[in-house]
Formats: sequence, structure tokens, C-alpha cells
Amino acid sequence: MSAIADTEDAYEELTDRYARIAHVEKAAGVLNWDQQVMMPDEGTPARSGQLSALSAVRHDLVTDPELGELLDAIDLDDLNDDEAAVVREIRYEHERAVEVPEDLVEEISRTQSEAQEVWQDARANDDFEGFAPTLTQLRDLHVERAEHIDPDRDPFEVMYDDSERDLPMETVERIFDRIREELIPLVEEIEERGDDLPRPFDAAAPYDPDAQRALHEDALDRLGFDRDRARLDTSPHPFTFGNQFDCRITTRFDEADPIDGLMSTIHEFGHATYQLGLPQDHYANPLGESRSSGVHESQSRFWENHVGRTRAFWDGFLPTFQEHFPGAEDVTPEAAYRAVNRIYPDNLIRVEADELTYHLHIVLRHEIGRAFVNGEIDVDELPIVWNDRMEEYLGVRPDTDANGVLQDIHWSMGFAAFESYTIGSVLAAQLDHAMREDLDDVDALIREGEFEPIHEWMTENVHSHGKRYRTDELIEEATGEPLTADYFVEYATEKFTDLYGL
Amino acid sequence: MSAIADTEDAYEELTDRYARIAHVEKAAGVLNWDQQVMMPDEGTPARSGQLSALSAVRHDLVTDPELGELLDAIDLDDLNDDEAAVVREIRYEHERAVEVPEDLVEEISRTQSEAQEVWQDARANDDFEGFAPTLTQLRDLHVERAEHIDPDRDPFEVMYDDSERDLPMETVERIFDRIREELIPLVEEIEERGDDLPRPFDAAAPYDPDAQRALHEDALDRLGFDRDRARLDTSPHPFTFGNQFDCRITTRFDEADPIDGLMSTIHEFGHATYQLGLPQDHYANPLGESRSSGVHESQSRFWENHVGRTRAFWDGFLPTFQEHFPGAEDVTPEAAYRAVNRIYPDNLIRVEADELTYHLHIVLRHEIGRAFVNGEIDVDELPIVWNDRMEEYLGVRPDTDANGVLQDIHWSMGFAAFESYTIGSVLAAQLDHAMREDLDDVDALIREGEFEPIHEWMTENVHSHGKRYRTDELIEEATGEPLTADYFVEYATEKFTDLYGL
Repeated sequence: MSAIADTEDAYEELTDRYARIAHVEKAAGVLNWDQQVMMPDEGTPARSGQLSALSAVRHDLVTDPELGELLDAIDLDDLNDDEAAVVREIRYEHERAVEVPEDLVEEISRTQSEAQEVWQDARANDDFEGFAPTLTQLRDLHVERAEHIDPDRDPFEVMYDDSERDLPMETVERIFDRIREELIPLVEEIEERGDDLPRPFDAAAPYDPDAQRALHEDALDRLGFDRDRARLDTSPHPFTFGNQFDCRITTRFDEADPIDGLMSTIHEFGHATYQLGLPQDHYANPLGESRSSGVHESQSRFWENHVGRTRAFWDGFLPTFQEHFPGAEDVTPEAAYRAVNRIYPDNLIRVEADELTYHLHIVLRHEIGRAFVNGEIDVDELPIVWNDRMEEYLGVRPDTDANGVLQDIHWSMGFAAFESYTIGSVLAAQLDHAMREDLDDVDALIREGEFEPIHEWMTENVHSHGKRYRTDELIEEATGEPLTADYFVEYATEKFTDLYGL
Repeated sequence: MSAIADTEDAYEELTDRYARIAHVEKAAGVLNWDQQVMMPDEGTPARSGQLSALSAVRHDLVTDPELGELLDAIDLDDLNDDEAAVVREIRYEHERAVEVPEDLVEEISRTQSEAQEVWQDARANDDFEGFAPTLTQLRDLHVERAEHIDPDRDPFEVMYDDSERDLPMETVERIFDRIREELIPLVEEIEERGDDLPRPFDAAAPYDPDAQRALHEDALDRLGFDRDRARLDTSPHPFTFGNQFDCRITTRFDEADPIDGLMSTIHEFGHATYQLGLPQDHYANPLGESRSSGVHESQSRFWENHVGRTRAFWDGFLPTFQEHFPGAEDVTPEAAYRAVNRIYPDNLIRVEADELTYHLHIVLRHEIGRAFVNGEIDVDELPIVWNDRMEEYLGVRPDTDANGVLQDIHWSMGFAAFESYTIGSVLAAQLDHAMREDLDDVDALIREGEFEPIHEWMTENVHSHGKRYRTDELIEEATGEPLTADYFVEYATEKFTDLYGL
């Protein structure tokens, strides 16, 4: 009895402490949203100070030895499965944080902050040599950190755990190999076939930003955006911030192209469905938090690709589009569907890539990033390795390093940072398949704008679990099998074979 | 030498710790601004948790015994005046916080939170009896807190220190007595004279909110609102949040009355000038923080009354007003000046009160609040004492408690909460007088929209000092004499004698 009482007390104290950590983290999220969306231009010095302070406060709370004592005081046999999952998640965060010396945490934080400015200058001036020393320094610091966390494991795998633990690297690399093997020939076929898909939206350009905003709001209403808990704003880079009570997405408007921004909005809407689907009574507790970056990306990719880029969606939504842009009244649903699914094999830039080539950009980054972290590639070799591999995978060679190895901010912040994007697409296709086993005629639902059954399925199978399951367990619970590239490959091959008449 | 080295180290560590406290507090300010201006309706549960967590983190940091040890390790003789002021301010905060047991802090916080809901219901239902037990409980808790801080002082004075320490209560009460004696007969004279001031703006109603927003933005540009560091939004109750890098004001629009919102904007602009005038290199340090609520209110009242309600301002600004509202093209500057200075002696509500009667509302609250805290008035007597005194001071008797003792939220949060508003007006008039000794023809500057010399004078004499001086010292430094009601009484008497032809 006494052990149970001790465990109960310790568990309650543990979750109270964790709630404070979570609140501080969410507060930092509000500050970050505000900085990107609302803050006056010259507010940065004050905001940086606030964010650093919250980060330091959070670190102190997570590494507090009393947290470790509480974890040790808990007898897992006295807990139910949910409680045991909570303890597992808090233990993971605590143990990972205490292994890294505070000096190193601060040095990494400072170096990353500086690295982002160095990277910006280097990209602006196409000056990889200007970035190389910083990149090496960052790599060494992250390797040092990884060795503190687990000296016996491959440092890249330890880094990868930051965004995607519980999906073995072996599984991910097998999936990446498959994607590379399947997509390279598919993209080549499309390239050879030549692009004669119509460009039906060009005629109605330019697209007024205010009208685009109204269109996006209508799209969100159609998809089921809960206005009492969510809002749409603009920012240079679309993103999602929020929780189950308050979730915000951002988008952007390109006057020449109404599709890019709309797809961004639908993508971020997908992220928002996850946050808004988390259980409210577990707010500030691991059971009320999203599982991982890859699972999160599965939600955004599901809504973007398996809803927003489907024939069914454009059958239903095109009239709304045309109300806002009467100049597009001659566009047919089929032409719209084709236009939003165009493939651009000669594109050099990941963030502008289409649904297929995108993953070759990711596989390339994973391979090169891993080899650089493991010391198989020297920093000076990065540009040429990058360009060679672009040529090998996509048949194009970057004209500059700014359009090559320097294009992403990610390596200024860490390595093993890209994998989740492709995991997201792979899982989205697998979820789409599983959902269609359960629901009748998903296409009809999408066409009619009846999204409630889809939301319910995702909430029941993914969102409502928070961090109850490990990522691999969650995927099996939701789809009945481990993560597999089969459904993504099948979906992509069928769709683009049909579209391009291959 | 060793003592100096110790002091230097301790001082550096002390200011680092204080900076973290300040950052956390500013972060909470961002969350509060967001809650009132941007947050979706249902975000409250998450936001309350975040704000409570930051408040608890701040409390832990302020009461940390190591902060006390650092304060004790510092030899004030080794510090310059600025450093000594910093230590004085941090010591004050630390000592005041450690005197109050943490349980009591939490009980007050929880009770206040509940009290605000109880008050809202009571006001909505005109049910003072429903609020009375909570009000008594809050009074007792605040008295208990005051006795922890200083058992030898009058509890009301200890409470008053929260917003306005360093201005002796004796000084403030002498000023309040003077104001009561001077304003009651002045308002009576106006009442007897009868209100036949023109209502020139009525003809052009309704006033479109979007056009009002554009007008306010133009007014802010004219006054010198730094767009790189500041922004205007709307909220149900106008307020100012911010710091020297990022300052935000809010306003509201009444379609029937374009003046109320405009004066709110100018009032909040005044608050913003203080935040934006604080030295940037002392951000997150007492030398970069505003002095007190009363000094803050002097800035808002200066801009609202000594700029926005002057003939000179309307001479210069009326054409801009008429550009936005062509229906008001027949209004003359003199008519506008008279319209924005109307006195309403029969008004019952503080927040709707004019420049004169407002202070009788404040004096009444001060007197009744103090007597209630000191036990001279029982809770059940509050409504009748309130109504009797309204009749005595303003010649009107509230028809309901909702329009009487229940009208303000303040007593749900604490007592001694109103004094700063009148101190602000008194100090604004004193600063206006001192400025006019230094600057040539301030009216011409206001008329021409040349506000830079005014900003410079206020920044040099008030803003730039942060908390370097105590409030009483700051007032003497800026104006050459202690706080006095003379200038306010003289200004008000002259202005309204002229306006109403008394």
C-alpha cells in the first residue's frame, strides 16, 4: 500500500512539474508566432532575450534533479498503461537533457544563432566557403552532444531521435532506398514524356491577395476549420503553431499563382487538425501532445495531397474558386486537377518542389547529411557531392551553391532534420489506404465537402492518442501494419502514370 | 580590492538574474496582449495555464534565496549611483516578495481569479450581495498580505505601494483634498450654467470603423508613432503593452462618436511614448523600466489632455479629420475643441467621465476603499456610502449598484488601485507647465504637428531615467518642485471657466 501511495504522490508531483515545463514551452511558442506574424520590425532584441530566458527556464526545469528523483520513486507496476506512457515520455526528456552539459547546450544555442546569420549572408552571396567553418563547427558540436547522450550509438542516429525516435533508422533507410529506386525512373519517364499539361490558371492572373485570402478562408470553412479555436494569418514562411485550445496557421499569397498559397493553407490546415484533435483534458501532459515530426507531417501531407490535390476536391471546390476569381470561369475541374499536380523535374529548390521530386531532394539531404556527420564527406566536398547527386537523381545540376547545398536553413540548426518530411508523405499514403478500408467512398466525401467522417477517423486513430504509443506502435494501431513505402509508391505511380499518360 | 571584486561579480550575477525575471515578465505581457487582441475565443484554458506557470516561475526567481545572498554580498560604496539604484530596485522587489508566504500568494491569485467571475455576474445581475462575501474575503487576504510585508504600517498604505510607492500617502491625500475642494464647486458652476456647447460631430454620424481606423493611424503618424517599433490594434478595453523595442496600443471604435476612440488612441499613444523612450541599452534592467503607474499615467494624460484636447491640436488636425469624414466639413476648429471638452456632471460611470468629474470618481474610490480596508466601513454599507458620496460630490445618485459600487473590476484584483489615475493628471499638468518654461510656444508646435521637441523634452526629463530616481526625486528632477496640485487646478479652472463662460 505504501509503495502505491508513494507512486501516486510522486506521479502527481511529476505531472505537475511536467505541466509547468509544457506551459513554458507553449508560451515560447506564442512568442515565436507573434515574432513571425505580428511583432514590429525592431522588436527582435527584446524578443530574443525573452525566448532565451524561457529556453533557459525550461532547461532548468527539465534537468532538475528532483524530477529525476520523482521518476525513480515511481513503481511502474502501480501505474496503468496511460500513466506508464506519461512516465516513459517524461523520463526520456529528462534523461536526454541531463546527459548534455549546460555549457555545451549554451554553446550550441549561441553557435546556431550565429550560424543562421552566417548562412543567410553566405546564401545571399553564393559563398559556401564563408559558411564552411561554421558548418564544421556545428557538426562537431552536435557530434559532441550526441556522444554525451549515447557514446555507443551512431551520432547521426542520436540526432535523428530529436525529431523521429522510435522509427528505426534501418526502417527509414529501407523506405528511402525504395523511394529512390521507384521515383527516379518515374520522374525520368515524365521528363521524357515532356510537359504538355495545360496551365489553365495563367489566364486569370494577377490574383489579388485580398481575394486569395477570402478564398483561403472559404477553403478552410469547407474543410472544417474551427474558428473558435483557430485563425489564419500571413507570414513569409507558412507554419502552424498551437494546441488543442488555440491553433494558428499562416500562409502567403503569390499574385501570379493562386495554387501555391492555397496548397500551403491546406497543408498547414492538416497540421492544425492534429493539434486541435489532441485531447483537451490532457493539455500540458504527454497524452495531449503530438507524437513526432513525421506523424505531424503525415497530417499536413494527407490534407494537402490526398485531399487538396485530388480530382474529387476540385470537382467540389472549383465553383468557390471561380466565385472569387471570375476570370477563371473557363477552367474545368479536370484541368484544375492536372494543374495542381504538375511535375517540375528541372527544379533545383526543395521548397518549390512537386509531390514526386520533393522526396529525391529529401533522400539526397539524408544521405549527404549522414555522411558529413559521420566524417565520410569533408566539408569542402559538400557542394560537389550535392551537385553530382542532383544530377544523378534529378538530371539537373545547380548553377550556384545558393541554389544547391546552401539553399536550406536546416543545417544551421542541426542535422538529421529532413527525414520527417518524407516519412510524413509515406505515412499519409498509408493512413489514406487504411481510412479507405474503413470509410465508404472517401472521394464522395471530399467531393461533397463532407469532411467530418475523415476528421473523426484521424482523430480516433491518430490525434486522440497524443504520445500514448511510441511512433511505431501508433502506426501499427492506426493502419494495422508497420510503416511501409508500399502505399506511397503505389499511389504516386498510379496517379502520375495516369496524369502523364505514361 | 577583494571587496570590490566581490561586489562586481555579485552585481553582474544579480543583474543577469534580474534580466531573466524581466524577460519572463515581458513574455507574460506578450501572452496577455495576444489574449486580448489575437487569441481565438476558446483559447483561455491553455492561456491561463501558461500565464500561471510564468507567474510561478517569476515568483520562484524573485524569491530565490540566492538573489538575497547576492544583494547582501554587494557593498553599495563600491557602486556608482546608477548601479546603486539598480540594487535598490531589485532589493525592494525581492524583499517584498519573500515576506509573503507562497501559500498566501497562491490563495490571493486563485481568489482574484474567481472574484473576477463573481464580480462579472454580480454586475450583470445588479447583485451586490452576491459579490459581498468575495469582496470581504479579498480584503482580508490583502490585509493579511500587507501585514506580512510590514506589520507596523497601515495596510492600505502597504497595498498602495504596489502601484505608487515613494509618493507619501500624506502628499497624495493632501492633493486629493485640494482637488475635491476645487472641483466640486467648479462642476457645480458648470451644472448651473447649463450645457449649451454645440454637438458639431453628430451630423456626420455614423462613423465607419474602417475610416476611424485610418484616421487614428493618421493621428498617430502626426504625433510621431514609430512604426518600426509600434503597432495599433483593437480590443474591448484600450490598453498599452510593450517595451523600448516593441510597443503596442489598442483602441476601439464607436460608430456614433468618433471622439471617444480617438482620445483613447491618443491616451494610449502617451503610454507608448514612455515605453519607447526608455533606454534600449538598459532593457531587462530597472534603469530600462518605467517608474510607476502614476508617472505612466502622466504621459497618457499629457498627450490626451494637454495635446489632444487643445485648441492648437484641433486647429492643425481638423482638416485630416474632415478628409476621412467629409460629412464633418462644416465643423470649425473652435467647435471641435469645445466638443472634445464637454463636461457631463450627471454621468455615473468612471470610465465614461470627462476630464473634471473623473477625479471626483477617483477621490471617492480612494476614500471608500481606504475606509473599507481599515474596517471603518462594513461591506454591507458600501453601496449606500458610495451612493451618498456620489450625491455629495457629483449631485447624482446611482440608480443601481451596477452603475455604482459594482462598476469597476479593480476591487476584484486589489485595493488602493485608483490613486495613480489622478496622480497622473496632476503630474501631467505639472510637466506641461515645466515644459512650457523650457520650450518656446508649445501651442505652435502642437498646431503645426512639430512634436519632436516635446518628445525630446519628455524623454530627457522622464523616460530616459527608467527607475534611476525614486518617484518623488524624478518629479523634482523633471519639474523643479515636488508633486503639487497647483498646476492641475490652475489649468482646469482656466480652461473650463473659459469654455463655459463662468
